[in-house]
Amino acid sequence: MGLQGAATRERILHEGLDLLTETGLSGVTLGALAQHAAMSKSGLFAHFSSIEEVQIELLDHMAEVSAAKVVRPAMLAAAGLPRLKALVNNWLGWTTKAGLRGGCPVAAALFELDDAEGPVRAKVLAMEAYWRGLLTQLTRQAVELGHLRADLDASQFVWELCGIYLSHHVSRRFLRDPRSEKRAQAAFAAMLDRSRSSEEENR
Amino acid sequence: MGLQGAATRERILHEGLDLLTETGLSGVTLGALAQHAAMSKSGLFAHFSSIEEVQIELLDHMAEVSAAKVVRPAMLAAAGLPRLKALVNNWLGWTTKAGLRGGCPVAAALFELDDAEGPVRAKVLAMEAYWRGLLTQLTRQAVELGHLRADLDASQFVWELCGIYLSHHVSRRFLRDPRSEKRAQAAFAAMLDRSRSSEEENR
Repeated sequence: MGLQGAATRERILHEGLDLLTETGLSGVTLGALAQHAAMSKSGLFAHFSSIEEVQIELLDHMAEVSAAKVVRPAMLAAAGLPRLKALVNNWLGWTTKAGLRGGCPVAAALFELDDAEGPVRAKVLAMEAYWRGLLTQLTRQAVELGHLRADLDASQFVWELCGIYLSHHVSRRFLRDPRSEKRAQAAFAAMLDRSRSSEEENR
Repeated sequence: MGLQGAATRERILHEGLDLLTETGLSGVTLGALAQHAAMSKSGLFAHFSSIEEVQIELLDHMAEVSAAKVVRPAMLAAAGLPRLKALVNNWLGWTTKAGLRGGCPVAAALFELDDAEGPVRAKVLAMEAYWRGLLTQLTRQAVELGHLRADLDASQFVWELCGIYLSHHVSRRFLRDPRSEKRAQAAFAAMLDRSRSSEEENR
């Protein structure tokens, strides 16, 4: 693939990611993608061999955007609770902060592909496992540093944190409730309160 | 519409609801529905004038099933916290308990239709408002009866409860994690713990 081919592919991924955030995976058809990228379906096939390949590449592209906008800036915060808090704050409503038009494609896919099988579901499963692994790792680090209590069940903590994220996504994007951010912050603060070590409480 | 017409319509709604739980609203096309109900597309049009009408009727049918399987049995529990707990327990994983093949159509629609407009989104919004209203009403009743503390923010409580429901839906249906029920019960118990009145705590 020459320079022009690489640029075209980049444009398809850029337009396709916005489409994906708005319509979910089921809306990313060859017809819709061709229209968004202003090219023909046969032109698209020069770059991708199947719609599943397009969807998986879009999810990879999303992961790159999220790594740059959500994860890397959070890693600059001090290790432990400050880093975990920074990651959660960047994560809530991250697509808007990253300039994307719609909601989180992975959150949508968790409901869209629950009864599906195949490579796209496997891709989303791997991305979700990576994400929960990262949250668990930062939570455990906050425990090790004494910011969260020693007997905290990090997996349960992350499970509940994912609930806050999903509820925030629904209230902000679907219900369009202006109190969404406040609600999410109150829920996160309450969860931290009961997860803090007594040492940290006394500071 | 004669008796036979009513029976056919009933069959379409029955088959259509299973399809809806598995594929979400975007999968409920006239083609897919005709195939599931073993009839022709033109036969379908004798019963429904548009795909939006079908989708809205399926959501109404879902609400009837949920009223019968989730809400009414819970209302038999004693007023206050017992009734709220009964409703939450019936709600978690309710589609499976109701014999449906897939997940909760409203939960999926909250992510699918966040960037959409139109009558189907309006229908889901009304259903979600009714549901959160019911949860809020039962929560307030538990406060009035002294089962939950007097200064509890019922709207925040319901917001967080919806997070537990969504996280349970994801972990049970998408991640297929056998600990989903345990996680949801632990999260709900922890939320109740910090929402209980001190009077109730001492019982």
